[in-house]
Amino acid sequence: MALSKIKAIAFDADDTLWENETLFRNAEHEFCELMKNYLPPEECNRLLFEVEMKNLPLYGYGIKPFTLSLIEAAITFSDGKIPMEAVQILIERGKKMLQEPVKLLDGIEDTLASLSDRYRLIMATKGDLLDQERKLIKSGLEPYFHHIEIVSDKTEVQYKKLVNHLDIGVEQFLMVGNSVKSDILPVLAIGSHAFHIPFHTTWAHEVVNEPVNHPNFRLLESSTEMLELL
Amino acid sequence: MALSKIKAIAFDADDTLWENETLFRNAEHEFCELMKNYLPPEECNRLLFEVEMKNLPLYGYGIKPFTLSLIEAAITFSDGKIPMEAVQILIERGKKMLQEPVKLLDGIEDTLASLSDRYRLIMATKGDLLDQERKLIKSGLEPYFHHIEIVSDKTEVQYKKLVNHLDIGVEQFLMVGNSVKSDILPVLAIGSHAFHIPFHTTWAHEVVNEPVNHPNFRLLESSTEMLELL
Repeated sequence: MALSKIKAIAFDADDTLWENETLFRNAEHEFCELMKNYLPPEECNRLLFEVEMKNLPLYGYGIKPFTLSLIEAAITFSDGKIPMEAVQILIERGKKMLQEPVKLLDGIEDTLASLSDRYRLIMATKGDLLDQERKLIKSGLEPYFHHIEIVSDKTEVQYKKLVNHLDIGVEQFLMVGNSVKSDILPVLAIGSHAFHIPFHTTWAHEVVNEPVNHPNFRLLESSTEMLELL
Repeated sequence: MALSKIKAIAFDADDTLWENETLFRNAEHEFCELMKNYLPPEECNRLLFEVEMKNLPLYGYGIKPFTLSLIEAAITFSDGKIPMEAVQILIERGKKMLQEPVKLLDGIEDTLASLSDRYRLIMATKGDLLDQERKLIKSGLEPYFHHIEIVSDKTEVQYKKLVNHLDIGVEQFLMVGNSVKSDILPVLAIGSHAFHIPFHTTWAHEVVNEPVNHPNFRLLESSTEMLELL
Protein backbone atom coordinates (compact mmCIF):
# COMPACT_ATOMS: atom_id res chain seq x y z
CA MET A 1 0.00 0.00 0.00
CA ALA A 2 1.29 3.40 -1.01
CA LEU A 3 1.76 4.93 2.40
CA SER A 4 4.48 7.14 0.93
CA LYS A 5 1.76 9.37 -0.58
CA ILE A 6 0.13 10.23 2.76
CA LYS A 7 0.07 13.97 3.53
CA ALA A 8 -2.57 14.35 6.23
CA ILE A 9 -3.47 12.01 9.09
CA ALA A 10 -6.73 12.37 11.00
CA PHE A 11 -7.03 10.85 14.46
CA ASP A 12 -10.31 9.99 16.07
CA ALA A 13 -10.36 11.38 19.62
CA ASP A 14 -12.34 9.27 22.11
CA ASP A 15 -10.66 5.90 22.76
CA THR A 16 -7.97 6.66 20.17
CA LEU A 17 -6.19 9.56 21.90
CA TRP A 18 -7.69 9.14 25.35
CA GLU A 19 -9.98 6.87 27.35
CA ASN A 20 -13.67 7.57 26.99
CA GLU A 21 -15.85 4.49 26.66
CA THR A 22 -14.95 3.32 30.17
CA LEU A 23 -16.50 6.54 31.60
CA PHE A 24 -19.80 5.78 29.87
CA ARG A 25 -19.75 2.11 30.87
CA ASN A 26 -19.12 3.09 34.51
CA ALA A 27 -21.95 5.63 34.38
CA GLU A 28 -24.32 3.01 32.93
CA HIS A 29 -23.32 0.57 35.63
CA GLU A 30 -24.03 3.14 38.35
CA PHE A 31 -27.33 4.04 36.67
CA CYS A 32 -28.53 0.44 36.66
CA GLU A 33 -27.51 0.17 40.34
CA LEU A 34 -29.68 3.24 41.04
CA MET A 35 -32.56 1.53 39.21
CA LYS A 36 -32.22 -1.93 40.78
CA ASN A 37 -35.50 -1.62 42.72
CA TYR A 38 -37.37 -1.26 39.43
CA LEU A 39 -35.66 -3.69 37.02
CA PRO A 40 -32.72 -6.12 36.93
CA PRO A 41 -29.36 -4.69 35.71
CA GLU A 42 -29.24 -6.68 32.46
CA GLU A 43 -32.69 -5.52 31.39
CA CYS A 44 -31.79 -1.99 32.47
CA ASN A 45 -28.66 -2.02 30.26
CA ARG A 46 -30.56 -3.37 27.28
CA LEU A 47 -33.47 -0.92 27.60
CA LEU A 48 -31.13 2.01 28.21
CA PHE A 49 -29.35 1.23 24.94
CA GLU A 50 -32.75 1.30 23.20
CA VAL A 51 -33.51 4.75 24.67
CA GLU A 52 -30.07 6.02 23.55
CA MET A 53 -30.54 4.65 20.02
CA LYS A 54 -34.02 6.17 19.75
CA ASN A 55 -32.65 9.58 20.81
CA LEU A 56 -29.41 9.45 18.78
CA PRO A 57 -30.74 10.99 15.51
CA LEU A 58 -32.20 13.90 17.48
CA TYR A 59 -29.59 14.39 20.21
CA GLY A 60 -26.33 13.29 18.55
CA TYR A 61 -23.30 12.04 20.50
CA GLY A 62 -21.80 13.06 23.81
CA ILE A 63 -22.34 13.47 27.53
CA LYS A 64 -25.29 15.90 27.38
CA PRO A 65 -27.40 13.58 25.17
CA PHE A 66 -26.38 10.69 27.43
CA THR A 67 -27.51 12.57 30.56
CA LEU A 68 -30.86 13.46 28.99
CA SER A 69 -31.37 9.82 27.97
CA LEU A 70 -30.55 8.63 31.50
CA ILE A 71 -33.15 10.99 32.99
CA GLU A 72 -35.76 9.87 30.46
CA ALA A 73 -34.92 6.20 31.10
CA ALA A 74 -35.09 6.65 34.90
CA ILE A 75 -38.61 8.06 34.63
CA THR A 76 -39.80 5.44 32.12
CA PHE A 77 -38.23 2.40 33.81
CA SER A 78 -39.63 3.36 37.23
CA ASP A 79 -43.02 4.36 35.81
CA GLY A 80 -42.44 7.84 37.25
CA LYS A 81 -41.81 6.46 40.76
CA ILE A 82 -38.09 7.26 40.99
CA PRO A 83 -37.46 9.93 43.65
CA MET A 84 -36.50 13.41 42.41
CA GLU A 85 -33.09 13.05 44.15
CA ALA A 86 -32.21 10.42 41.54
CA VAL A 87 -32.73 12.95 38.73
CA GLN A 88 -30.51 15.36 40.62
CA ILE A 89 -27.85 12.66 40.97
CA LEU A 90 -27.97 12.04 37.20
CA ILE A 91 -27.53 15.74 36.42
CA GLU A 92 -24.58 15.99 38.80
CA ARG A 93 -23.12 12.76 37.36
CA GLY A 94 -23.26 14.31 33.87
CA LYS A 95 -21.49 17.45 35.06
CA LYS A 96 -18.83 15.32 36.72
CA MET A 97 -18.29 13.39 33.47
CA LEU A 98 -17.78 16.70 31.62
CA GLN A 99 -15.02 17.59 34.09
CA GLU A 100 -13.28 14.22 34.27
CA PRO A 101 -9.47 14.32 33.89
CA VAL A 102 -8.19 13.18 30.49
CA LYS A 103 -6.36 9.83 30.54
CA LEU A 104 -4.07 9.52 27.51
CA LEU A 105 -3.68 6.13 25.86
CA ASP A 106 -0.21 4.55 26.02
CA GLY A 107 2.34 5.94 23.60
CA ILE A 108 0.02 8.38 21.87
CA GLU A 109 1.98 11.51 22.78
CA ASP A 110 5.28 10.13 21.42
CA THR A 111 3.52 8.98 18.26
CA LEU A 112 1.97 12.39 17.63
CA ALA A 113 5.20 14.22 18.46
CA SER A 114 7.09 12.19 15.88
CA LEU A 115 4.42 12.30 13.15
CA SER A 116 3.64 16.01 13.51
CA ASP A 117 7.06 16.90 12.05
CA ARG A 118 6.27 15.10 8.81
CA TYR A 119 2.48 15.16 8.39
CA ARG A 120 -0.45 17.51 8.84
CA LEU A 121 -2.30 16.02 11.82
CA ILE A 122 -6.03 16.59 12.37
CA MET A 123 -8.33 15.55 15.18
CA ALA A 124 -11.60 14.29 13.64
CA THR A 125 -14.44 13.54 16.01
CA LYS A 126 -18.21 13.32 16.03
CA GLY A 127 -18.42 14.28 19.69
CA ASP A 128 -19.56 17.56 21.15
CA LEU A 129 -17.29 20.47 20.09
CA LEU A 130 -17.00 22.23 23.45
CA ASP A 131 -16.34 18.96 25.28
CA GLN A 132 -13.76 17.75 22.72
CA GLU A 133 -11.96 21.11 22.68
CA ARG A 134 -11.78 21.03 26.45
CA LYS A 135 -10.35 17.51 26.43
CA LEU A 136 -7.81 18.42 23.75
CA ILE A 137 -6.56 21.37 25.82
CA LYS A 138 -6.47 19.33 29.05
CA SER A 139 -4.65 16.50 27.25
CA GLY A 140 -1.68 18.68 26.29
CA LEU A 141 -1.89 17.22 22.75
CA GLU A 142 -3.15 20.44 21.12
CA PRO A 143 0.27 21.60 19.79
CA TYR A 144 0.55 18.48 17.60
CA PHE A 145 -2.69 19.13 15.69
CA HIS A 146 -3.17 21.48 12.76
CA HIS A 147 -6.89 21.82 13.58
CA ILE A 148 -10.00 20.00 14.82
CA GLU A 149 -12.69 18.73 12.45
CA ILE A 150 -16.05 18.11 14.10
CA VAL A 151 -18.54 16.10 12.06
CA SER A 152 -22.11 15.30 13.04
CA ASP A 153 -21.59 11.74 11.81
CA LYS A 154 -18.70 9.81 10.25
CA THR A 155 -20.10 8.86 6.86
CA GLU A 156 -18.56 8.65 3.37
CA VAL A 157 -20.08 12.04 2.50
CA GLN A 158 -18.56 13.65 5.59
CA TYR A 159 -15.12 12.12 4.91
CA LYS A 160 -15.22 13.34 1.30
CA LYS A 161 -15.96 16.85 2.58
CA LEU A 162 -13.12 16.55 5.07
CA VAL A 163 -10.59 15.47 2.41
CA ASN A 164 -11.75 18.26 0.04
CA HIS A 165 -11.42 20.70 2.88
CA LEU A 166 -7.79 19.59 3.38
CA ASP A 167 -7.09 20.26 -0.33
CA ILE A 168 -5.52 16.84 -0.89
CA GLY A 169 -6.48 13.74 -2.87
CA VAL A 170 -8.22 10.78 -1.22
CA GLU A 171 -5.06 8.66 -1.64
CA GLN A 172 -3.14 11.20 0.48
CA PHE A 173 -5.45 10.84 3.49
CA LEU A 174 -5.10 8.41 6.39
CA MET A 175 -7.63 7.99 9.21
CA VAL A 176 -6.68 6.40 12.53
CA GLY A 177 -9.30 5.25 15.01
CA ASN A 178 -10.79 2.60 17.25
CA SER A 179 -14.16 2.18 15.53
CA VAL A 180 -14.36 0.01 12.40
CA LYS A 181 -17.82 1.40 11.65
CA SER A 182 -16.93 5.10 12.00
CA ASP A 183 -13.20 5.39 11.41
CA ILE A 184 -12.41 2.58 8.94
CA LEU A 185 -15.17 1.39 6.57
CA PRO A 186 -16.37 4.80 5.23
CA VAL A 187 -12.72 5.92 4.82
CA LEU A 188 -11.75 2.83 2.79
CA ALA A 189 -14.93 3.28 0.75
CA ILE A 190 -13.83 6.71 -0.51
CA GLY A 191 -10.38 5.38 -1.47
CA SER A 192 -8.36 6.63 1.49
CA HIS A 193 -6.23 4.74 4.01
CA ALA A 194 -7.29 3.56 7.47
CA PHE A 195 -5.48 2.19 10.53
CA HIS A 196 -7.59 0.44 13.14
CA ILE A 197 -6.32 0.51 16.73
CA PRO A 198 -8.95 -1.32 18.81
CA PHE A 199 -9.73 -0.15 22.34
CA HIS A 200 -10.62 -2.87 24.86
CA THR A 201 -14.21 -1.62 25.14
CA THR A 202 -16.43 -0.75 22.16
CA TRP A 203 -19.87 0.81 22.41
CA ALA A 204 -22.56 -1.61 21.10
CA HIS A 205 -23.58 1.01 18.51
CA GLU A 206 -20.10 0.91 16.96
CA VAL A 207 -19.53 -2.86 16.91
CA VAL A 208 -18.83 -4.45 13.50
CA ASN A 209 -18.19 -8.20 13.48
CA GLU A 210 -16.71 -9.00 10.07
CA PRO A 211 -12.92 -8.67 9.81
CA VAL A 212 -11.69 -5.96 7.42
CA ASN A 213 -9.64 -7.03 4.41
CA HIS A 214 -8.49 -4.21 2.16
CA PRO A 215 -5.14 -3.14 0.68
CA ASN A 216 -5.44 0.32 2.28
CA PHE A 217 -6.13 -1.11 5.74
CA ARG A 218 -3.91 -2.06 8.70
CA LEU A 219 -4.85 -3.41 12.11
CA LEU A 220 -2.47 -2.17 14.83
CA GLU A 221 -2.13 -2.98 18.49
CA SER A 222 -0.95 0.45 19.53
CA SER A 223 -0.35 3.86 17.96
CA THR A 224 3.42 3.45 18.33
CA GLU A 225 3.31 0.80 15.54
CA MET A 226 2.46 3.67 13.19
CA LEU A 227 6.04 4.88 13.47
CA GLU A 228 7.34 1.69 11.84
CA LEU A 229 4.96 2.09 8.91
CA LEU A 230 5.18 5.83 8.18
CA MET B 1 -14.49 51.67 4.45
CA ALA B 2 -12.82 49.43 1.92
CA LEU B 3 -15.64 46.98 1.29
CA SER B 4 -14.21 46.37 -2.17
CA LYS B 5 -11.54 44.14 -0.60
CA ILE B 6 -14.04 41.69 0.95
CA LYS B 7 -13.60 38.09 -0.25
CA ALA B 8 -15.44 36.01 2.35
CA ILE B 9 -18.60 36.79 4.31
CA ALA B 10 -19.56 34.81 7.40
CA PHE B 11 -23.15 34.84 8.59
CA ASP B 12 -24.19 34.06 12.11
CA ALA B 13 -27.07 31.53 12.02
CA ASP B 14 -29.57 31.94 14.88
CA ASP B 15 -31.55 35.20 14.57
CA THR B 16 -29.50 36.24 11.54
CA LEU B 17 -30.64 33.59 9.02
CA TRP B 18 -33.64 32.29 10.93
CA GLU B 19 -35.67 32.91 14.07
CA ASN B 20 -34.32 31.32 17.22
CA GLU B 21 -34.47 33.51 20.30
CA THR B 22 -38.30 33.55 20.24
CA LEU B 23 -38.32 29.74 20.70
CA PHE B 24 -36.22 30.04 23.84
CA ARG B 25 -38.26 32.96 25.20
CA ASN B 26 -41.48 30.97 24.66
CA ALA B 27 -39.98 27.92 26.38
CA GLU B 28 -38.89 30.07 29.35
CA HIS B 29 -42.34 31.57 29.56
CA GLU B 30 -43.96 28.11 29.62
CA PHE B 31 -41.41 26.93 32.19
CA CYS B 32 -42.21 29.78 34.57
CA GLU B 33 -45.93 29.01 34.11
CA LEU B 34 -45.19 25.40 35.11
CA MET B 35 -43.36 26.72 38.19
CA LYS B 36 -45.92 29.32 39.27
CA ASN B 37 -46.91 27.36 42.43
CA TYR B 38 -43.33 27.66 43.67
CA LEU B 39 -42.20 31.15 42.69
CA PRO B 40 -43.47 34.24 40.80
CA PRO B 41 -42.66 34.40 37.04
CA GLU B 42 -40.24 37.34 37.28
CA GLU B 43 -38.17 35.67 39.97
CA CYS B 44 -38.33 32.43 38.02
CA ASN B 45 -36.96 34.16 34.89
CA ARG B 46 -34.18 35.84 36.82
CA LEU B 47 -33.10 32.69 38.68
CA LEU B 48 -33.32 30.58 35.53
CA PHE B 49 -30.89 32.96 33.82
CA GLU B 50 -28.52 32.49 36.78
CA VAL B 51 -28.69 28.70 36.41
CA GLU B 52 -28.01 29.00 32.66
CA MET B 53 -25.04 31.30 33.20
CA LYS B 54 -23.58 29.03 35.87
CA ASN B 55 -23.85 26.04 33.49
CA LEU B 56 -22.70 27.85 30.31
CA PRO B 57 -18.93 27.24 30.66
CA LEU B 58 -19.57 23.52 31.18
CA TYR B 59 -22.53 22.91 28.87
CA GLY B 60 -22.03 25.43 26.06
CA TYR B 61 -24.88 26.78 23.89
CA GLY B 62 -27.99 25.15 22.48
CA ILE B 63 -31.20 23.29 23.23
CA LYS B 64 -29.68 20.31 25.10
CA PRO B 65 -27.86 22.52 27.65
CA PHE B 66 -31.04 24.59 27.96
CA THR B 67 -33.15 21.48 28.68
CA LEU B 68 -30.68 20.25 31.31
CA SER B 69 -30.70 23.69 32.96
CA LEU B 70 -34.52 23.74 33.00
CA ILE B 71 -34.65 20.34 34.75
CA GLU B 72 -32.04 21.46 37.28
CA ALA B 73 -33.93 24.71 37.87
CA ALA B 74 -37.28 22.93 38.28
CA ILE B 75 -35.84 20.72 41.02
CA THR B 76 -34.03 23.57 42.78
CA PHE B 77 -36.85 26.16 42.57
CA SER B 78 -39.43 23.66 43.91
CA ASP B 79 -37.08 22.27 46.53
CA GLY B 80 -37.51 18.85 44.92
CA LYS B 81 -41.31 19.03 45.20
CA ILE B 82 -42.12 19.36 41.49
CA PRO B 83 -43.93 16.22 40.24
CA MET B 84 -41.96 13.86 37.98
CA GLU B 85 -44.42 14.59 35.14
CA ALA B 86 -42.98 18.11 34.97
CA VAL B 87 -39.50 16.71 34.25
CA GLN B 88 -41.01 14.55 31.55
CA ILE B 89 -42.72 17.63 30.05
CA LEU B 90 -39.37 19.48 29.99
CA ILE B 91 -37.65 16.59 28.19
CA GLU B 92 -40.43 16.40 25.61
CA ARG B 93 -40.37 20.20 25.25
CA GLY B 94 -36.64 20.04 24.47
CA LYS B 95 -37.19 17.35 21.83
CA LYS B 96 -39.94 19.45 20.28
CA MET B 97 -37.61 22.46 20.12
CA LEU B 98 -35.03 20.35 18.28
CA GLN B 99 -37.64 19.51 15.65
CA GLU B 100 -39.19 22.96 15.26
CA PRO B 101 -39.63 24.15 11.65
CA VAL B 102 -37.11 26.75 10.51
CA LYS B 103 -38.55 30.24 10.01
CA LEU B 104 -36.32 32.27 7.67
CA LEU B 105 -35.89 35.98 8.33
CA ASP B 106 -37.28 38.36 5.69
CA GLY B 107 -35.17 38.74 2.56
CA ILE B 108 -32.31 36.51 3.69
CA GLU B 109 -32.65 33.98 0.86
CA ASP B 110 -32.52 36.69 -1.86
CA THR B 111 -29.54 38.30 -0.16
CA LEU B 112 -27.59 35.03 0.01
CA ALA B 113 -28.52 34.07 -3.56
CA SER B 114 -27.16 37.37 -4.85
CA LEU B 115 -23.99 37.44 -2.71
CA SER B 116 -23.05 33.79 -3.26
CA ASP B 117 -22.16 34.55 -6.90
CA ARG B 118 -19.53 37.06 -5.87
CA TYR B 119 -18.27 36.03 -2.40
CA ARG B 120 -17.38 32.91 -0.47
CA LEU B 121 -20.19 32.62 2.10
CA ILE B 122 -19.71 30.81 5.41
CA MET B 123 -22.14 30.05 8.21
CA ALA B 124 -20.37 30.72 11.52
CA THR B 125 -22.17 29.69 14.67
CA LYS B 126 -21.47 28.76 18.25
CA GLY B 127 -24.53 26.52 18.49
CA ASP B 128 -24.66 22.76 18.55
CA LEU B 129 -23.29 21.26 15.30
CA LEU B 130 -25.95 18.59 14.76
CA ASP B 131 -28.76 21.03 15.48
CA GLN B 132 -27.32 23.77 13.25
CA GLU B 133 -26.66 21.36 10.36
CA ARG B 134 -30.24 20.13 10.64
CA LYS B 135 -31.57 23.70 10.53
CA LEU B 136 -29.36 24.61 7.57
CA ILE B 137 -30.67 21.63 5.58
CA LYS B 138 -34.31 22.32 6.56
CA SER B 139 -33.87 26.01 5.68
CA GLY B 140 -32.98 25.31 2.05
CA LEU B 141 -30.08 27.79 2.41
CA GLU B 142 -27.32 25.14 2.27
CA PRO B 143 -26.48 25.61 -1.46
CA TYR B 144 -25.44 29.22 -0.84
CA PHE B 145 -22.77 28.36 1.74
CA HIS B 146 -19.25 27.17 1.06
CA HIS B 147 -19.10 25.48 4.46
CA ILE B 148 -20.12 25.73 8.14
CA GLU B 149 -17.73 26.86 10.85
CA ILE B 150 -18.72 25.82 14.35
CA VAL B 151 -16.88 27.59 17.17
CA SER B 152 -17.24 26.90 20.87
CA ASP B 153 -17.26 30.63 21.51
CA LYS B 154 -17.02 33.75 19.36
CA THR B 155 -13.86 35.39 20.65
CA GLU B 156 -11.01 37.27 18.94
CA VAL B 157 -8.87 34.11 19.06
CA GLN B 158 -11.60 32.04 17.38
CA TYR B 159 -12.15 34.67 14.66
CA LYS B 160 -8.43 34.84 13.96
CA LYS B 161 -8.38 31.06 13.53
CA LEU B 162 -11.41 31.30 11.24
CA VAL B 163 -9.81 33.96 9.00
CA ASN B 164 -6.53 31.97 8.85
CA HIS B 165 -8.48 28.91 7.96
CA LEU B 166 -10.08 30.79 5.04
CA ASP B 167 -6.59 31.73 3.78
CA ILE B 168 -7.44 35.44 3.49
CA GLY B 169 -6.33 38.61 5.25
CA VAL B 170 -8.37 40.11 8.09
CA GLU B 171 -9.27 43.09 5.87
CA GLN B 172 -10.93 40.67 3.41
CA PHE B 173 -13.31 39.22 5.99
CA LEU B 174 -16.82 40.46 6.82
CA MET B 175 -19.00 39.06 9.61
CA VAL B 176 -22.77 39.58 9.65
CA GLY B 177 -24.85 38.94 12.74
CA ASN B 178 -27.40 40.02 15.31
CA SER B 179 -25.19 40.00 18.40
CA VAL B 180 -22.88 42.97 19.04
CA LYS B 181 -21.04 40.96 21.68
CA SER B 182 -20.44 37.83 19.58
CA ASP B 183 -20.61 38.91 15.95
CA ILE B 184 -19.34 42.49 15.95
CA LEU B 185 -16.90 43.55 18.69
CA PRO B 186 -14.37 40.66 18.45
CA VAL B 187 -14.44 40.93 14.62
CA LEU B 188 -13.70 44.67 14.63
CA ALA B 189 -10.98 44.04 17.21
CA ILE B 190 -9.02 41.78 14.83
CA GLY B 191 -9.26 44.33 11.99
CA SER B 192 -12.09 42.78 9.97
CA HIS B 193 -15.46 44.21 8.93
CA ALA B 194 -18.79 43.70 10.69
CA PHE B 195 -22.44 44.38 9.83
CA HIS B 196 -24.91 44.37 12.68
CA ILE B 197 -28.51 43.41 11.84
CA PRO B 198 -30.42 43.51 15.15
CA PHE B 199 -33.17 40.97 15.81
CA HIS B 200 -36.14 42.21 17.87
CA THR B 201 -35.24 39.93 20.80
CA THR B 202 -31.72 39.56 22.24
CA TRP B 203 -30.74 37.05 24.92
CA ALA B 204 -29.66 38.85 28.11
CA HIS B 205 -26.25 37.12 27.88
CA GLU B 206 -25.60 38.83 24.50
CA VAL B 207 -26.80 42.34 25.31
CA VAL B 208 -24.29 45.18 24.88
CA ASN B 209 -25.49 48.67 25.61
CA GLU B 210 -22.88 51.03 24.18
CA PRO B 211 -23.38 51.98 20.52
CA VAL B 212 -20.63 50.84 18.16
CA ASN B 213 -18.60 53.45 16.32
CA HIS B 214 -15.91 52.10 14.03
CA PRO B 215 -14.93 52.68 10.38
CA ASN B 216 -15.33 48.97 9.59
CA PHE B 217 -18.83 48.81 11.10
CA ARG B 218 -22.34 49.26 9.68
CA LEU B 219 -25.72 48.99 11.38
CA LEU B 220 -28.38 47.61 9.00
CA GLU B 221 -32.10 47.12 9.36
CA SER B 222 -32.30 44.07 7.16
CA SER B 223 -29.94 41.79 5.22
CA THR B 224 -31.23 43.14 1.91
CA GLU B 225 -29.41 46.45 2.65
CA MET B 226 -26.18 44.49 2.21
CA LEU B 227 -26.86 44.39 -1.53
CA GLU B 228 -26.59 48.19 -1.77
CA LEU B 229 -23.22 48.15 0.01
CA LEU B 230 -21.47 45.19 -1.59
